Amino acid sequence: MTTPELSIDGARLRRDIEQVASFGAVDADDGRGRTALPGDEANGEARDYLVNRLEEAGLDVRIDAVGNIAGRWTPPGADPAAAPVAAGSHLDSVPRGGIFDGPLGVFAALEAVRTIRGSDISPTRGLEVVCFTGEEGTRFADGVLGSTVATGKRGVEETLSLTDGDETLENALERLGYRGTGRLDASEWDAWLELHIEQNTRLEDAGVPLGVVTDITGTARCHVTIEGDADHSGTTGMTERQDALAAASELVLAVERNAGETAASGSGTAVGTVGQFDVAPNVVNVVPGTVSLRLDLRSVEAAEIQAQLDAVTNTLRAIEDDRNVSTAFDCTYDVPPTPLSERCRTVVRDAARDRGVETRTLHSGAGHDTMQVADVTDAALLFAASVGGHSHSPKEWADWADCTAATTVLADSLARLVTTDER
Amino acid sequence: MTTPELSIDGARLRRDIEQVASFGAVDADDGRGRTALPGDEANGEARDYLVNRLEEAGLDVRIDAVGNIAGRWTPPGADPAAAPVAAGSHLDSVPRGGIFDGPLGVFAALEAVRTIRGSDISPTRGLEVVCFTGEEGTRFADGVLGSTVATGKRGVEETLSLTDGDETLENALERLGYRGTGRLDASEWDAWLELHIEQNTRLEDAGVPLGVVTDITGTARCHVTIEGDADHSGTTGMTERQDALAAASELVLAVERNAGETAASGSGTAVGTVGQFDVAPNVVNVVPGTVSLRLDLRSVEAAEIQAQLDAVTNTLRAIEDDRNVSTAFDCTYDVPPTPLSERCRTVVRDAARDRGVETRTLHSGAGHDTMQVADVTDAALLFAASVGGHSHSPKEWADWADCTAATTVLADSLARLVTTDER
Repeated sequence: MTTPELSIDGARLRRDIEQVASFGAVDADDGRGRTALPGDEANGEARDYLVNRLEEAGLDVRIDAVGNIAGRWTPPGADPAAAPVAAGSHLDSVPRGGIFDGPLGVFAALEAVRTIRGSDISPTRGLEVVCFTGEEGTRFADGVLGSTVATGKRGVEETLSLTDGDETLENALERLGYRGTGRLDASEWDAWLELHIEQNTRLEDAGVPLGVVTDITGTARCHVTIEGDADHSGTTGMTERQDALAAASELVLAVERNAGETAASGSGTAVGTVGQFDVAPNVVNVVPGTVSLRLDLRSVEAAEIQAQLDAVTNTLRAIEDDRNVSTAFDCTYDVPPTPLSERCRTVVRDAARDRGVETRTLHSGAGHDTMQVADVTDAALLFAASVGGHSHSPKEWADWADCTAATTVLADSLARLVTTDER
Repeated sequence: MTTPELSIDGARLRRDIEQVASFGAVDADDGRGRTALPGDEANGEARDYLVNRLEEAGLDVRIDAVGNIAGRWTPPGADPAAAPVAAGSHLDSVPRGGIFDGPLGVFAALEAVRTIRGSDISPTRGLEVVCFTGEEGTRFADGVLGSTVATGKRGVEETLSLTDGDETLENALERLGYRGTGRLDASEWDAWLELHIEQNTRLEDAGVPLGVVTDITGTARCHVTIEGDADHSGTTGMTERQDALAAASELVLAVERNAGETAASGSGTAVGTVGQFDVAPNVVNVVPGTVSLRLDLRSVEAAEIQAQLDAVTNTLRAIEDDRNVSTAFDCTYDVPPTPLSERCRTVVRDAARDRGVETRTLHSGAGHDTMQVADVTDAALLFAASVGGHSHSPKEWADWADCTAATTVLADSLARLVTTDER
C-alpha cells in the first residue's frame, strides 16, 4: 500500500523545537544547549508550550499522575474500540544537553498528527502524541521514569515518592502543575513509534538521513564506593597511604580497557563509562579518603554486559588486595537489551522506500522510552542523522532537512498503522 | 645553663585545646574533628577565645591588617630595645581536620608564657604569643597566608584582596572583627619557636614524645586541567572517545608512581598527591569532558620536587598524544625546602635533655608558618608525637601527657632564649 501525499511543515516543526530550546538555554561557544531537568522551571515551560500546541491542534490532552502528557486525536470515522497508535518522546534534558534529544520526537509526532489530520487519510484508529516524564535519569530515578510507570513496571505511588534528596517527584510535579491523575497505559496502544536523534555518526558516515533501529542496548548502572584513609598529603609517606583516588583511577582505566576489549571481540556494541566521580574530602593537601562513582555498562548482548560487570568485580577485588582499601559495588538499574518489533520496522522501511528516503538499520547505544514500551506493545525507533555525532552536549546537531525527511517517514508510518486492521 | 623549675599546667592547656575543638566540631565515629576555615564562624569563635585568654593572661593584644593575632608580654626587667622572642602557630583547620593541628602550638605558647610569667625567671627580652591567619590553604591562598605577610613576602593590600571566589579576605576578616591594622613583622623577632603535632608515626614508632625538626619539606602546588570531549556514554564507541576522566586517571597513577620511585631512590622524603579532583559534567550517562585537579609535590630536596614536576610534564605530553585531549599545567605555589636554625635547635635539645624529655631529629613533611619565619629570623619547629600518625582527619590524636612534656620543653626553650643576650 501507499498512503496519500503527506506534506510535513518543516518550518513549523523547527519553530516548535527552537521555541523549546529557548527554555533553559545555556551559554555555549560550540553549539546550542539547554538544561531542563525534570521538575525545573525550563521543564515546566517546555511542558506548557507542548500542552498549548496539542490543544491548538485540537487534541484531547491528559496529564497522568507522574506527569506523562498525552494528546489524543480520535478521527471521526475511527472504531472507538480500536487500540490507538502512539508516538512521541521526552522533553527533559541532561545538564547542558542538546536541543534535539527528546523534543524532536515529541514535536515530530505532533507535526505528523497535524499533517495526517489535514490530509485525505481516514484513520480507523486514534492517534496519540506522548511526552514521557524524566527519560534522562538526572533526577528522581535512573532514567525512562515515565515509561516505566506507563508500562506498569513501577507503581504510581512509589514513583511519586522518589526523591532527588531535596524534594519528591510529586512535589516537583505539583509545583509545575503536572501532578495529574490516572496512569497512561502503553499496553493499550496498538503500536508505538519514537523518532530520536541518532547520537552517533553512523548515518552521517553512510550519507543516510534516517536509521531504523533493530535493537536497543541493555544498560547496567552501578554505584561503586572506594574507602581509603584521608590523611595529610605531606606527612604520609607513599608506602603508608590508602589513597582512594589512586585506587579509583585503576578502576576507571580497567572499565575503559574491559569495554574496549569486549567491543573489539564481540558484537561491537559494548561500552563502559565512569561518568560520575566524586572525591572526598577533595582538598589539595589531603590524601583522598573516599571516592564515590557511577558506572554505565552497555551492549545489545546481555552476556557482554555481564562480562563487564564480572571484570569490575575482579578489578575491585584486586584493588582491595593491593591497596588496603575497602570497596562497595551495587547495581541499581539493569535494563536488558531490547529487540524491536518486526511489524513496525517493516512499516517504517516501506514508508521510507515509498517516500524516497534512504535508511540504514543499526542498533541504539542509548536507552530510550521505547525499550520500556517494546515490552508491552509493538514498538519501533527511528533515528534522524546527527551532524558530528555529538550528544548530551550543546554540540549535538541535526540538519533541519533531515528532521523533515524523518518526520515525513514517521507520519507515513503512523498513517499506515492507523489505516490497517492487520495485526 | 639550666632554667628554674617551670611547672606547666597540662590540664589548663587541655581545656584550651578542647574548648577550641568545640568550635566547628564535626560528627566523626573515629575520632574528634573540626572545620574552622579562615573567616568562617568557627574560626571567629576560636579567635575570640584566644584573644580573651591572651588578655586574661595580661598580654597586650594586637590584630594586624590580615588578622594575625599577637599577644606581647614585656617583662618588667626587660630591655625595651631588645628583640622579643615569639612562639605560636595557627587556629584554622582543613575541612574535617583534627583538633591539635594548629591550636596545640598556639595554646602551648600561651601556656609557656603564663608559666614563665609565674616563675622566678627574669627575662631580658619580651615574649610574644602568635596566631597566624590561614595556614592551611583552604581559602584565599594556598597556605601560610599570615606568615607570608608577616615576613614581607606578600603585601597587605594584595593579600586583603585575595578572594575565595565569593568574598575577599578583607570582607571575611571584617565580618569576624579581625581586620586590624599594621603588619606583624617577624623579622623583628630574635627567635621563633613553633610546637606542632607530628602528623606521622616516626616519634610513636621510636617511643619518643618530642621531635626536633631539621628541615621543612619544600612544596610545589599545581593546577592541571584535562579537556576531552563530553559525549553520550551509550552512543559513543570506545574508540571514538576523548574521555577526560580516563586521561586524568593515568596522571593520578603516574604521580603516585613517580613519587614512590623518587622517595625510594632519594632522600626518602618525596611525596606526590592529587588531593583535589573535579569532573565535569559529572553525570552518569555522559563521557567526562573536563577534569580539573590539583597536585601537591614535596621533598626536603629541591631536585626531587623538580624531578616530580618533570615527570608530570612528560606524562601530560604522553596523554595528549595517546588520547587526543588537551592539557594545561600551571604551578602557583612553590616553597623551597627550609633548613632550620642550628642555634634554636640546640636550645631546644638542651632544654629537652635538662627536662628529661627524650627527643629525635626528623624532617617535616608538612609546610608550616615556621618555613616562612625561618627566612627572616632564627626559627625552630618542635613536634609532639602523634598517636597513629593521622592528620587532616578526625583521627588525628596526641597523648595529653606528651603535649604537656612538649610544652614544658617549649617553655624551657623560650625561657633560655629570653634570658640570654647571645646571638
